[in-house]
Amino acid sequence: MPLGRDYAGQNCTLARALEVVGERWTMLVLRDLFFGVRRFGAIQAHLDIPSAALSDRLATLVDWGLVERTPYAGTRAEYLLTARGLELWPILYQLMQWGERHFVDGDDVVRVFSHVACGTELSAAGSCATCATTPTPDEIETRPGTAAPRVVREDAISVALRSPHRLLEPLPRSSP
Amino acid sequence: MPLGRDYAGQNCTLARALEVVGERWTMLVLRDLFFGVRRFGAIQAHLDIPSAALSDRLATLVDWGLVERTPYAGTRAEYLLTARGLELWPILYQLMQWGERHFVDGDDVVRVFSHVACGTELSAAGSCATCATTPTPDEIETRPGTAAPRVVREDAISVALRSPHRLLEPLPRSSP
Repeated sequence: MPLGRDYAGQNCTLARALEVVGERWTMLVLRDLFFGVRRFGAIQAHLDIPSAALSDRLATLVDWGLVERTPYAGTRAEYLLTARGLELWPILYQLMQWGERHFVDGDDVVRVFSHVACGTELSAAGSCATCATTPTPDEIETRPGTAAPRVVREDAISVALRSPHRLLEPLPRSSP
Repeated sequence: MPLGRDYAGQNCTLARALEVVGERWTMLVLRDLFFGVRRFGAIQAHLDIPSAALSDRLATLVDWGLVERTPYAGTRAEYLLTARGLELWPILYQLMQWGERHFVDGDDVVRVFSHVACGTELSAAGSCATCATTPTPDEIETRPGTAAPRVVREDAISVALRSPHRLLEPLPRSSP
């Protein structure tokens, strides 16, 4: 029996969700969109995946209404998360935090997320203890943590993310 | 470039987490373990996947410490979630809830989760409004919701899950 894209024999809504976001690379594409990367070439350079795979994943996300494709400058396009896509933030964040706890040595962390309004680092569940709130992505800033990187990448997005960056704000930043 | 199992070029802990739980079927195997399904044959019949795929996914989960394999009755074994595996419950639950909101028609739901102590249905974030707490899996009961099933399955686990069932309690139940 082939391992097709869908889980047609399963009723559970987890299976339906995975038909949309469970493909290889899709979660990392979503992460890049949360980081504010909006253009095909920038996502591709950052993830280092074949363009056919990225095209396929973006098309699926557009088809299912998680991402909106907006043309600009003739044949180019920008990809932006819709409300439906933005709702996935807590899931991505908690999966990152689970990875930090179990697959990063000692007390180091690969990436820090903090509440822009007060600077407090978010809890593992994504809340701000100072403000007693759970910030939405546009209220969150990210910066590198203390863990040594597994690889050092030199694409524009990797370089930009070495500085603090507010989620959803466009990356790479425009030249002044 | 092949799309291998890992995301070696990525530093993000999301990539590391996905190396462990991002393979096709793995999240559904974890869901079955949360539902209390402990035996290879029962998981296989419920998910309807090739045994080679299930062997591979379980071996990965054991290798990374999310699942413990306990031999019984000679050559057989039971698979139980470890603390590291149990931590994934909020992520699976929120992914299911996202699927319920966006891919199930109207107000119907495929599956209901409630707090055993008081019977209150859990919020989309997994909390109990009556007790102002976020129940752990062993404090949660599941039962089918009002949505018509996409398929009607007759394996022992599918049949058992038509009745209310407390998470983590063994499925299928022993004969009386």
